[in-house]
Amino acid sequence: MAIKVGILGAKGRVGRAIVEGVSAADDLELVAEVDRGDSLDKLVDSGAEVVVDFTQPGAVMDNLEFCVGHGIHCVVGTTGFDEQRLDKVAEWASKDGAGHVLIAPNFAISAVLTMAFAAQAAKFFETAEVVEYHHPTKLDAPSGTAIHTAQGIARARAGAGMGEMPDATEQTLEGARGAVVDGVPVHAVRTRGMVAHEEVIFGAQGQSLTIRQDSYDRSSFVPGVLVGVRKIAEHAGLVVGLENYLDI
Amino acid sequence: MAIKVGILGAKGRVGRAIVEGVSAADDLELVAEVDRGDSLDKLVDSGAEVVVDFTQPGAVMDNLEFCVGHGIHCVVGTTGFDEQRLDKVAEWASKDGAGHVLIAPNFAISAVLTMAFAAQAAKFFETAEVVEYHHPTKLDAPSGTAIHTAQGIARARAGAGMGEMPDATEQTLEGARGAVVDGVPVHAVRTRGMVAHEEVIFGAQGQSLTIRQDSYDRSSFVPGVLVGVRKIAEHAGLVVGLENYLDI
Amino acid sequence: MAIKVGILGAKGRVGRAIVEGVSAADDLELVAEVDRGDSLDKLVDSGAEVVVDFTQPGAVMDNLEFCVGHGIHCVVGTTGFDEQRLDKVAEWASKDGAGHVLIAPNFAISAVLTMAFAAQAAKFFETAEVVEYHHPTKLDAPSGTAIHTAQGIARARAGAGMGEMPDATEQTLEGARGAVVDGVPVHAVRTRGMVAHEEVIFGAQGQSLTIRQDSYDRSSFVPGVLVGVRKIAEHAGLVVGLENYLDI
Amino acid sequence: MAIKVGILGAKGRVGRAIVEGVSAADDLELVAEVDRGDSLDKLVDSGAEVVVDFTQPGAVMDNLEFCVGHGIHCVVGTTGFDEQRLDKVAEWASKDGAGHVLIAPNFAISAVLTMAFAAQAAKFFETAEVVEYHHPTKLDAPSGTAIHTAQGIARARAGAGMGEMPDATEQTLEGARGAVVDGVPVHAVRTRGMVAHEEVIFGAQGQSLTIRQDSYDRSSFVPGVLVGVRKIAEHAGLVVGLENYLDI
Repeated sequence: MAIKVGILGAKGRVGRAIVEGVSAADDLELVAEVDRGDSLDKLVDSGAEVVVDFTQPGAVMDNLEFCVGHGIHCVVGTTGFDEQRLDKVAEWASKDGAGHVLIAPNFAISAVLTMAFAAQAAKFFETAEVVEYHHPTKLDAPSGTAIHTAQGIARARAGAGMGEMPDATEQTLEGARGAVVDGVPVHAVRTRGMVAHEEVIFGAQGQSLTIRQDSYDRSSFVPGVLVGVRKIAEHAGLVVGLENYLDI
Repeated sequence: MAIKVGILGAKGRVGRAIVEGVSAADDLELVAEVDRGDSLDKLVDSGAEVVVDFTQPGAVMDNLEFCVGHGIHCVVGTTGFDEQRLDKVAEWASKDGAGHVLIAPNFAISAVLTMAFAAQAAKFFETAEVVEYHHPTKLDAPSGTAIHTAQGIARARAGAGMGEMPDATEQTLEGARGAVVDGVPVHAVRTRGMVAHEEVIFGAQGQSLTIRQDSYDRSSFVPGVLVGVRKIAEHAGLVVGLENYLDI
Repeated sequence: MAIKVGILGAKGRVGRAIVEGVSAADDLELVAEVDRGDSLDKLVDSGAEVVVDFTQPGAVMDNLEFCVGHGIHCVVGTTGFDEQRLDKVAEWASKDGAGHVLIAPNFAISAVLTMAFAAQAAKFFETAEVVEYHHPTKLDAPSGTAIHTAQGIARARAGAGMGEMPDATEQTLEGARGAVVDGVPVHAVRTRGMVAHEEVIFGAQGQSLTIRQDSYDRSSFVPGVLVGVRKIAEHAGLVVGLENYLDI
Repeated sequence: MAIKVGILGAKGRVGRAIVEGVSAADDLELVAEVDRGDSLDKLVDSGAEVVVDFTQPGAVMDNLEFCVGHGIHCVVGTTGFDEQRLDKVAEWASKDGAGHVLIAPNFAISAVLTMAFAAQAAKFFETAEVVEYHHPTKLDAPSGTAIHTAQGIARARAGAGMGEMPDATEQTLEGARGAVVDGVPVHAVRTRGMVAHEEVIFGAQGQSLTIRQDSYDRSSFVPGVLVGVRKIAEHAGLVVGLENYLDI
């Protein structure tokens, strides 16, 4: 029996990609498309079991209060959640009969897995570095994803009692060894034509392990959203981060 | 307090690399080097807690019976274990006070992690292919590691109820789409100068995930052996496969 | 002084990308956009010095006869040129005052350079293999570009008196070693999410050289078209293949 | 008819690898192995047509004066040549009947081709960056080869009248965008297990071109030395840099 799915922000660029993704999946049934100006009652009336919210920080809290209160699960890619907002959502989601909530900053499953695997691999390798590649119109360097990846590696190394990485560099040009994030070098390449790519390179005696993620276009969040939709019934309360749904 | 380590086959090429690796590790103490002609009593006399055996199929069973019987743990890279031999070792290792045994066909930790991560990632991606790269003097194509990797991916896909991968190929040259191992295409590249390298490529909408392993020289088994030595006290009985020691 | 450019097929998907590319270039001036139903006189009236034709096999010969006859240079990405058509165009382009013509099957400059560099490198390496990566809805495997690349490598090897590549494979699964194109193994990977990618791997003692081309979206022909527009005045008559414009 | 080859410094690590390489080549005949203490007359007596010199800065000038004066060609990998030394060698090599001389700082043919192709490709791409990978015991970062590669790209861009690369970075961590060599970002990764690897990444609309060089072990200079031995008869006088022998 297909899961009944409603989509909030269905007419935005992101929303339309999710509409397409849900429609194409045999095990999901698209029952409601809601956009600005539409009543949220449409979600209840259509029998939606899960709602996907990629809307605006200004709208998402009202959406969540309504859906969770009506026992509808919420997969949320909207940004702007601080501690206070997360506490509020957790409170709503903890009530009897409340809908479950997944809030994730990144639904690109290849990127989420890269971070998860990197954290798992870190303790087995003497060295680890991150290289990320983006188009040259990107404003920040390194990317947020690369910084998070490095932080996860650093935490895993610390947890395993590992010290500083070996680096005999004596003679260097400024910047050659990258930015250092919690002890992990991170390099940002800006290449015309590229979209969003990340590579984590681990080294040990006689070998290396490379985990690489490539996003080729902006629809790369869709598979991760569908994982969220399919699994949210098993995860009560508020969960932050898609990695918690991946059984890894 | 350092773990006391004895090495069987200490004068072979592999054994010497392990001697070096153990000697260089602060938390391990090399207490015995045993080679053909030496008495196994040396291991007991030296107080070895863990023994590493990279010897010959003709010697390894006697070594294991002796060590396990004396409560010494055994990390084993020697080949030639069939079901019958494994049953025998499991029986020895199940006795009260017996040494623990780890037998692994592959101690290259980057290769073991590649297989483990590939099996974990498989269910999240529509497509998966394996490309392996070796020197042109290799006799088999694809490599055993690549075949195992493909089999692990196939099992994970089957377990998640995934069907065949999409492939619209109509017009093809024979061999272009690789060998098919349990439904997973595997390609073998033979390149002068390369050593042993494997790449697993997963694809989903708008993105790909690539896990790559490079072995640059034949000492790449050392870090995995040291993981075995450090963790064997926690794993009673017989364990086959280093992946079971990696907490992933 | 900017080169005056007219575009045939300006309203098609490809045409619009070229319109954008020409408009964005400081050294080019877009003077005419012509599509089905428009008179070709517009090109003459606007003073176009170079015309770009990405139209249809059914239209391109008339377009070329007109333009070349009026002394307008033609950069042509339209398909469907056989020997007979090429002879005809060459004849038109050989007349006094005729426009120059560049016909190229591939304007993705990264792909054209990959083929050119591969042909140059081939004689210095014992082994060479091609791996191409495309989305799984592609009908042919390997791609035409990969086949051409392999043929170029084979010609270069033959020209240098090189024999067969070393390959000790004795035990194999059918297809593992790829399709063989003039002695060069070619592997085709089909990955959801990827677009069009090609890798050429050369091996020699202790080293490898890899030349890789990635097309991330369908506008990747634009930079090559602009190279054609800028250089066509220097190349009289008919030239087939963008590589002849690259001074390499 | 095989070319007769003598080797200076034949007993050193490098010399032995060259002895092996020459011995294995059908078109070359090893006629003399000379090391410290041996008379150079051995080279003349053996009829050597080409000599390979991988010795010491303190010995190489005497070796060259002798060989060139006796009409023996010299392929030289010894370091320590400044302008003054090069002038002297050029003078010797310009005499009637003198031996030809090739002096090259880098004989790894994959590295030399990477630099040559990078310089050729540079003018066709909006962006170019260099990433090099070495073991963590390397003292300098970036590597000399990476710096030369970046300088060659910068010269090619300047020659084509190209300006600065686009880079919208506003918010950055120090070092993230690499070291800047003549306007080209260069990143140095230090990974245990790796040997010497370099990647040049070019970007243009919708595409990228990557040229990568991997050295897996220290014998990677051999194929380049053999190219030098085979071609030196065609190149009179003094030539600096193997790239000048490659017909590219």
